[in-house]
Amino acid sequence: MILLIPGPVTTHPEVKAALLQDIAPWDNDWGHRLAVVRQRLLALAGGVSGRHAALLLQGCGHFAAEAAVRTFVPRGGKVLVPITGNYAERFARLAHEAGRTVVRLSVGPKERASPAAVARALAADPTIGHVAMVYSETSSGIVHDIAAIGREAAALGRRTLVDAVSAFGALPLDIAAMPEADAVFFTSNKCLEGMPGLSAIVVDTARTAACAAQAESWSLDLADILRHGQTSGWGSFRFTPPAQVVEALAAALDRLDSESRPARLARYEANMRTLYHGVQRHGLTPCLPEAIQGPIVLNVHAPEHANWTLQGFVDALKPEGFVISNFHNTPWPSFRLGCIGAIGKSEMEQAVTAIGRALDRMGIVQRQAGTAQRQAA
Amino acid sequence: MILLIPGPVTTHPEVKAALLQDIAPWDNDWGHRLAVVRQRLLALAGGVSGRHAALLLQGCGHFAAEAAVRTFVPRGGKVLVPITGNYAERFARLAHEAGRTVVRLSVGPKERASPAAVARALAADPTIGHVAMVYSETSSGIVHDIAAIGREAAALGRRTLVDAVSAFGALPLDIAAMPEADAVFFTSNKCLEGMPGLSAIVVDTARTAACAAQAESWSLDLADILRHGQTSGWGSFRFTPPAQVVEALAAALDRLDSESRPARLARYEANMRTLYHGVQRHGLTPCLPEAIQGPIVLNVHAPEHANWTLQGFVDALKPEGFVISNFHNTPWPSFRLGCIGAIGKSEMEQAVTAIGRALDRMGIVQRQAGTAQRQAA
Repeated sequence: MILLIPGPVTTHPEVKAALLQDIAPWDNDWGHRLAVVRQRLLALAGGVSGRHAALLLQGCGHFAAEAAVRTFVPRGGKVLVPITGNYAERFARLAHEAGRTVVRLSVGPKERASPAAVARALAADPTIGHVAMVYSETSSGIVHDIAAIGREAAALGRRTLVDAVSAFGALPLDIAAMPEADAVFFTSNKCLEGMPGLSAIVVDTARTAACAAQAESWSLDLADILRHGQTSGWGSFRFTPPAQVVEALAAALDRLDSESRPARLARYEANMRTLYHGVQRHGLTPCLPEAIQGPIVLNVHAPEHANWTLQGFVDALKPEGFVISNFHNTPWPSFRLGCIGAIGKSEMEQAVTAIGRALDRMGIVQRQAGTAQRQAA
Repeated sequence: MILLIPGPVTTHPEVKAALLQDIAPWDNDWGHRLAVVRQRLLALAGGVSGRHAALLLQGCGHFAAEAAVRTFVPRGGKVLVPITGNYAERFARLAHEAGRTVVRLSVGPKERASPAAVARALAADPTIGHVAMVYSETSSGIVHDIAAIGREAAALGRRTLVDAVSAFGALPLDIAAMPEADAVFFTSNKCLEGMPGLSAIVVDTARTAACAAQAESWSLDLADILRHGQTSGWGSFRFTPPAQVVEALAAALDRLDSESRPARLARYEANMRTLYHGVQRHGLTPCLPEAIQGPIVLNVHAPEHANWTLQGFVDALKPEGFVISNFHNTPWPSFRLGCIGAIGKSEMEQAVTAIGRALDRMGIVQRQAGTAQRQAA
């Protein structure tokens, strides 16, 4: 079964095999392995040892996002969130529930966040301390220009938090060139092609130390994680880690090293294009013009046909060997296809064939008509 | 390699094998599997469907503890914490950093928490709303009488939070007989003999719903997890779960069903006794009298010998095939041996032999003398 969801992804057998061990997480031998994983993540992020650190946190990307906003934005402090889609909305909710003040900046559902609009919003309110940016919006599939937005924030003396959950491991990132960034966070189970259960946050160490005791949560305090890691030598976890998932990540990083980050991005872009043109051949319409379509996840307009239900389509694809999401995050009915994971040209071509078969089995044949209607609308 | 640490534990090959799959966590088929896991945990806790619910949270036991105190104790609210050891201290820190007020109650390092002392502390301060109790203190090895403490709390109209991390799956628990309990929390990787990365909280559903919006953390809000689970039908996660770890837990629950909870407890008790008497035969002294020694973790006084270092002992045990903790949580130098996991009489006897060999290799032979000195002191 191939996962065509935008994470957790289909993993390589070597990644799964790395799970098959019992691990004592505070044992010295394992500690050295952990230190290497952290160092590799730091290098992937373009971090400079000492100036930056890669911290690991148990759990999902939402936990990392909440840890970042709690650690770097003080209670009542203001954070500007360009509302790029569902994941920006989630960040806004995490920040709001943590007692931070969210300033929303609208972004059209088919638009990249505008660096100029961010600059105007920051200039209009000097009390906004941070901008929180989603690099690759899973809900839309759009990749945003975090470097350009970061430069605007930096020019106005503001700090940034970067949600790189659906980006890290494939899209380029160079935190050394982002002096305005307090934190870039991501997880093990997206473009890194590891297993879920672990998140990571690459932080500016001086800023993190300066923000000690601001998080109001021991569990989610990145300053405490940094301090603990410095004390323990190799950055060991404070609390029981998902050690097997860390080992799977180590195996996944081996694979990324072999492939190279640019080659992985190229593979995902090719995956996306195969799916993009493949669904078009079935008479379906991708939600975004190709020029703005990112390489991570492809949203496709639901066919306007009486037989269509998303769950029906999901169920029809499963016997073909593919699992897709049974929900969508676009403002209009759609289905989404992940382009990431340990899959390539062959699996993508099979997926296109499977989509055609599933539509046929559902009796959805008048596809072009519906598509044409919607394009006109 | 056998883990003689008090969790994560040595797991059965079937538990590890369950990790070997890619999983789409929001797929309906997996949702049904998840619902069964939650139902099984609820039944193990003695919960009544509807009146109680088993909620799952990504991450470690500390996250579950913080989620429980955030959800049920309002900001500034008071929670009484009998300081039974390091894990009670950790709960106190989690509560304090979350802005809750901790009232500490001293407990001797070789004593069970006194229900009468808890009652006196509660009677003395009517503004204390909750008691947080550790069932099995990992740092000491003592099992506390949570039922008796709960009855005292109930008699005074107070609520309880139960840390069952090092207890659940082996020690008896019947939340239906604990109407004063808001939450009992635990993890997958201790006496349940699953993998780390997942925690669970069995809650009183009416109380949880009544405490909505009190957590000040979306990530750690049990009321939101309950509401989301009710909406989704099978209690699906809100955010990406460690799905492979959930599958490992399902396999671990199969094994627990086969063994039975009382038989597992008896096995752990036998493991503890083999280790207890075994180290005595090597001239070492367990930290607790046998009458108060719990079945989960055994602390043993460090030999008073110039050659002793804990790390040296850890390193000497490793070639024998055993990993023990390289730190201790007792007020005096000690080492600790976990009695839990997929291990029994044979492994315990091997462990006793290995301990003797390791001491011999370290040249620690005058053991009785040091022990006698300490017992006299």
